[in-house]
Amino acid sequence: MPHYTAIVTLLAVLLYFYTGVRVAQARARFGVRAPAITGHPDFERVFRVQMNTLEWMPIFLPALWLFALYVNDLGAAAVGVVWVIGRVLYLVGYSAAANKRGRGFGIQALAAGVLLVGALIGIVVRMAHGG
Amino acid sequence: MPHYTAIVTLLAVLLYFYTGVRVAQARARFGVRAPAITGHPDFERVFRVQMNTLEWMPIFLPALWLFALYVNDLGAAAVGVVWVIGRVLYLVGYSAAANKRGRGFGIQALAAGVLLVGALIGIVVRMAHGG
Amino acid sequence: MPHYTAIVTLLAVLLYFYTGVRVAQARARFGVRAPAITGHPDFERVFRVQMNTLEWMPIFLPALWLFALYVNDLGAAAVGVVWVIGRVLYLVGYSAAANKRGRGFGIQALAAGVLLVGALIGIVVRMAHGG
Repeated sequence: MPHYTAIVTLLAVLLYFYTGVRVAQARARFGVRAPAITGHPDFERVFRVQMNTLEWMPIFLPALWLFALYVNDLGAAAVGVVWVIGRVLYLVGYSAAANKRGRGFGIQALAAGVLLVGALIGIVVRMAHGG
Repeated sequence: MPHYTAIVTLLAVLLYFYTGVRVAQARARFGVRAPAITGHPDFERVFRVQMNTLEWMPIFLPALWLFALYVNDLGAAAVGVVWVIGRVLYLVGYSAAANKRGRGFGIQALAAGVLLVGALIGIVVRMAHGG
Repeated sequence: MPHYTAIVTLLAVLLYFYTGVRVAQARARFGVRAPAITGHPDFERVFRVQMNTLEWMPIFLPALWLFALYVNDLGAAAVGVVWVIGRVLYLVGYSAAANKRGRGFGIQALAAGVLLVGALIGIVVRMAHGG
């Protein structure tokens, strides 16, 4: 089992969970009652942070685990930590203003890209060697 | 392979699928045509049931499987069934009224929390023993 | 490891990623600035393509992998490719008009159903044989 990747998976899940906690807090603060998901720009940005993190989970988690299983556990975990850091910067930036979401987004997209491409190479190499 | 966890995974996926079926039904009943996702409070609550279940899938599934692989298959499956039951209560409650979604939500959040914390302990113990 | 299923997983993730790229493009083309997710019907259909693909990822990926692990790698990959093709047709159809999303949606739903039912049978057979 890739232990380091398992730990980073829980870290990413906890960060993602926290983006949802912030939506619940923003509902109260800006008076946007469920089931509404619009009504105040400050709420909508916090909501979009959660949504965008959700949108990337089915990219990040499969890429992370295929990288871990076909390439290297510690390498997957290290790039996974970069992804989480990018996500934290995205959360902080986007919560402040929509035009401050770029840097964190770029970092997490780059990390996910490294995992995807690395996993693809790892799978192809393994298949070529009949592994 | 953790067989019981595999079965509960399919059960959770089927319940989640059903939340989407209910959105399609609510589109027809309340006259909210795609691609709109607002327009009638009764539709919006049914839509939010699907969305919230979707939002929790990337928390529940990784936590369930890490618990199964690092702690115990049958234990993961048992807590997973509690999660599914909480999700059913949430679906029924929220469909009736926004303020009736709390109990089911709390049950499924508790179940997911048990899986997350249990998985984390399981991984750390395994790493400490050099497993 | 089920290599073919791993490859198809990356293929599905890339297609899903592309549905998000098209949302970013549609934001620019139709003048819908983040965090807004409404404002122009052409944007909203492109957004719904991404959302619907996201909604199906937690159905498709678990069903694909349980089928691969309990039934057959190559079989899972083949049905997975059908799912991806259905998703491409859905993307093209829905982007053109809301009432053109049916065929692609039906194909991917059928493929996901085959994976789900096949996985369920595979798990039950394995458990019945004490495997």
